[in-house]
Amino acid sequence: MPSAASRGQGHDRRPENEDSSAADDYAKERYGVSSMIQSQEKPDRVLVRIKDLTLEKADQEVWVRGRIHTSRAKGKQCFLVLRQQQFNIQALVAVGQHASKQMVKFAANITKESIVDVEGVVRKAFQKVGGCTQQDVELHVQRDGRATVNQDTRLDNRIIDLRTSTSQAIFCLQSGVCQLFRETLIRKGFVEIQTPKIISAASEGGANVFTVSYFKTSAYLAQSPQLYKQMCICADFDKVFCVGPVFRAEDSNTHRHLTEFVGLDIEMAFNYHYHEVVDEIADTLVQIFKGLQERFQTEIQTVGKQFPCEPFKFLEPTLRLEYQEGVAMLREAGVEMGDEEDLSTPNEKLLGRLVKEKYDTDFYILDKYPLAVRPFYTMPDPANPKSSNSYDMFMRGEEILSGAQRIHDPQLLTERAKHHGIDLEKIKAYIDSFRFGAPPHAGGGIGLERVTMLFLGLHNVRQTSMFPRDPKRLTP
Amino acid sequence: MPSAASRGQGHDRRPENEDSSAADDYAKERYGVSSMIQSQEKPDRVLVRIKDLTLEKADQEVWVRGRIHTSRAKGKQCFLVLRQQQFNIQALVAVGQHASKQMVKFAANITKESIVDVEGVVRKAFQKVGGCTQQDVELHVQRDGRATVNQDTRLDNRIIDLRTSTSQAIFCLQSGVCQLFRETLIRKGFVEIQTPKIISAASEGGANVFTVSYFKTSAYLAQSPQLYKQMCICADFDKVFCVGPVFRAEDSNTHRHLTEFVGLDIEMAFNYHYHEVVDEIADTLVQIFKGLQERFQTEIQTVGKQFPCEPFKFLEPTLRLEYQEGVAMLREAGVEMGDEEDLSTPNEKLLGRLVKEKYDTDFYILDKYPLAVRPFYTMPDPANPKSSNSYDMFMRGEEILSGAQRIHDPQLLTERAKHHGIDLEKIKAYIDSFRFGAPPHAGGGIGLERVTMLFLGLHNVRQTSMFPRDPKRLTP
Repeated sequence: MPSAASRGQGHDRRPENEDSSAADDYAKERYGVSSMIQSQEKPDRVLVRIKDLTLEKADQEVWVRGRIHTSRAKGKQCFLVLRQQQFNIQALVAVGQHASKQMVKFAANITKESIVDVEGVVRKAFQKVGGCTQQDVELHVQRDGRATVNQDTRLDNRIIDLRTSTSQAIFCLQSGVCQLFRETLIRKGFVEIQTPKIISAASEGGANVFTVSYFKTSAYLAQSPQLYKQMCICADFDKVFCVGPVFRAEDSNTHRHLTEFVGLDIEMAFNYHYHEVVDEIADTLVQIFKGLQERFQTEIQTVGKQFPCEPFKFLEPTLRLEYQEGVAMLREAGVEMGDEEDLSTPNEKLLGRLVKEKYDTDFYILDKYPLAVRPFYTMPDPANPKSSNSYDMFMRGEEILSGAQRIHDPQLLTERAKHHGIDLEKIKAYIDSFRFGAPPHAGGGIGLERVTMLFLGLHNVRQTSMFPRDPKRLTP
Repeated sequence: MPSAASRGQGHDRRPENEDSSAADDYAKERYGVSSMIQSQEKPDRVLVRIKDLTLEKADQEVWVRGRIHTSRAKGKQCFLVLRQQQFNIQALVAVGQHASKQMVKFAANITKESIVDVEGVVRKAFQKVGGCTQQDVELHVQRDGRATVNQDTRLDNRIIDLRTSTSQAIFCLQSGVCQLFRETLIRKGFVEIQTPKIISAASEGGANVFTVSYFKTSAYLAQSPQLYKQMCICADFDKVFCVGPVFRAEDSNTHRHLTEFVGLDIEMAFNYHYHEVVDEIADTLVQIFKGLQERFQTEIQTVGKQFPCEPFKFLEPTLRLEYQEGVAMLREAGVEMGDEEDLSTPNEKLLGRLVKEKYDTDFYILDKYPLAVRPFYTMPDPANPKSSNSYDMFMRGEEILSGAQRIHDPQLLTERAKHHGIDLEKIKAYIDSFRFGAPPHAGGGIGLERVTMLFLGLHNVRQTSMFPRDPKRLTP
């Protein structure tokens, strides 16, 4: 089994099967450490994917490249589990016509997590192979099995951690969230935009923003693409979305805060009422949920084995409650809170449970937040001066989207900024964007890692960020 | 024509049609400045898109919301061109049963770039309307035409600039490039990943990197997602791609350099030869070119009106030349250069022209660059110690992708880094990533703005970046 991949032996590699009995090893050409693949040749050999090893391939000879997941030697046999992403199969190396006792010993000594090339015959298993995804078959290694031996593995390293079936499934599903988000919006006539991350002024007043040195001056990292989405609306792009990093210099060390996360952002001009936009956003999320349940059932089940949870439930059309309805439900459950008070995290979670009990949905919209708890650029509710045309969306009782109709009138925007005590000089460019004629518009930003976490019923956003960043973590 | 959108008059707005003759204006209810849309009502009114105004709608009454593109009064008539993104139509307000002379005057005085709501009847045009996309019809404004008047417009503002047909077409096509890139790769079994932009160490030695203050320490902005793509390969994701911002603190003030641009990145494990990856990348670009020519013909033609150029040509399969073949072609054309010398920008362009003459393609691959001119992590060519398993791809003679087989063996990687005089301490984390077993892999990074620019035959990358960033520009 010669190496298909790296090991730390550089140019002086030599076979490792040189033991005293090498002379009488009738299988000595059939295993060992291969030379590093440096693109020297293009053999015709076909490598079969482990997930394709099913009963249909019974009795066929195949080549497979996989990781050694586990290995167990037992007398003249060695059982290996070979893994490829989420899939694995049992392989058997047994002393006989094709394998010598030295070859079995060699196989048994390969370090876990090594990459091996194996040739064998697919055989129907006598009984279901427990613990493997390919339960109906096993691979009988019979000739030219070849393997690489690795350096010591360190299981506390993220690279290793990402190899587990659970991680593989989480990030395949997350790729699906992005794909479904964009697929749905492109079908709805949206245009994808790219917005700058290095900006000259901190748009929302200057708190919680990272500073960058920029040649002889300094700049900031964008806390959201909102200003640029709105500028695209003013530039007549009508319906836009973007997917990209969002930076928050908040010293929040919670299960759901990151200093860098991926924002799925939407902004849309509407005709008469911001509910036109709310409906589009809610439907986009519903299409994501449906798409995940249709296309990623394997991944959902893989994650569920390690982290069991109830399947995610949602209604069509999406349930939309007004803020005051939510407050009434909480009060009925014994919570004391004012009409214009914001929801605390525990109250959000409690409300999520109450909504689930009453409406049987894990996803809903809370509309018409108190004006006082929303940013200055939020459009006031024309019917109630204490309310606003703004909304949050929740999954399993946690906020995944915050959005609003934005004020598109520069004079009203100026008044509201003054009311919030914001330095008008600092947001001049923002206000000026609306002086060239802006259509009414609304939008919102979705946190990708939160959607993945809550859809799968996980409990920490670091599980759904490949290389998470928080106030205490900058590596790997 | 009451306003559909913003103007700077806040809450004290009043109709602007109060002139001395208002008393005898029989159409005075039919026009004026509307109240700001604050989502007060949800009327049943349907707004028809300008692009849908064709002969099929002749003699129908429709409501349209658009920008005033041009306006020209002539006696008792006013001709307006109404614009919506790339599409426009001529509208006529004429004194008669539905419009008074005051209403015509009001229409003629609306500032360009204002947003107006207009009701009218679609009429077959007597002759083709030159200068409009909807050439066969015009809109006869007949009642309740309503408009908003804007603040002064400033044409040097990017928001205004993005409203032009050319800009609308450029960025719709750019959205298409991203869409086709991902669509193709997902079909090929790739997984989309999200990589961090704030990193703890400058991966490629520390030059040209932006510094960020990160709580009590400092960090850097990623110059490419390469390390993280490679870590995903080591974590068995097998085939990955990502789309995201890339930061370069280079003080390059050229037509093709930005300090922040969008990278379309690919990384892929292969079986035996890195050409497996080269073929996948080249085919992905070919699928993008084909998709653009199939789905974005309107946009290509719109841009071509302002910036005429030859249609983009490519071959299937993609032409792949070896570096030394390119050098030979240049020498034949009179260029003097050494075998191990890198291509200068003028020589790249000249080679592009020579390749176009000889092979009739605007897209080709230059393979097997001299080892000396590539980064330390580039896999040497096993057949020639002066060459490497690396490649660039070119569109119209300009580089749009740089890529290579990466060294996946930590010992060889260490040797090559030493040879380049790189401080091993600074890249320890990078080298360590390969100590847990890495499959052979290759990849590359594509510059989105360059692909859009060169496909459309444009001459400055700032035309294909919505909000470009260079050493001298940080706004808007």
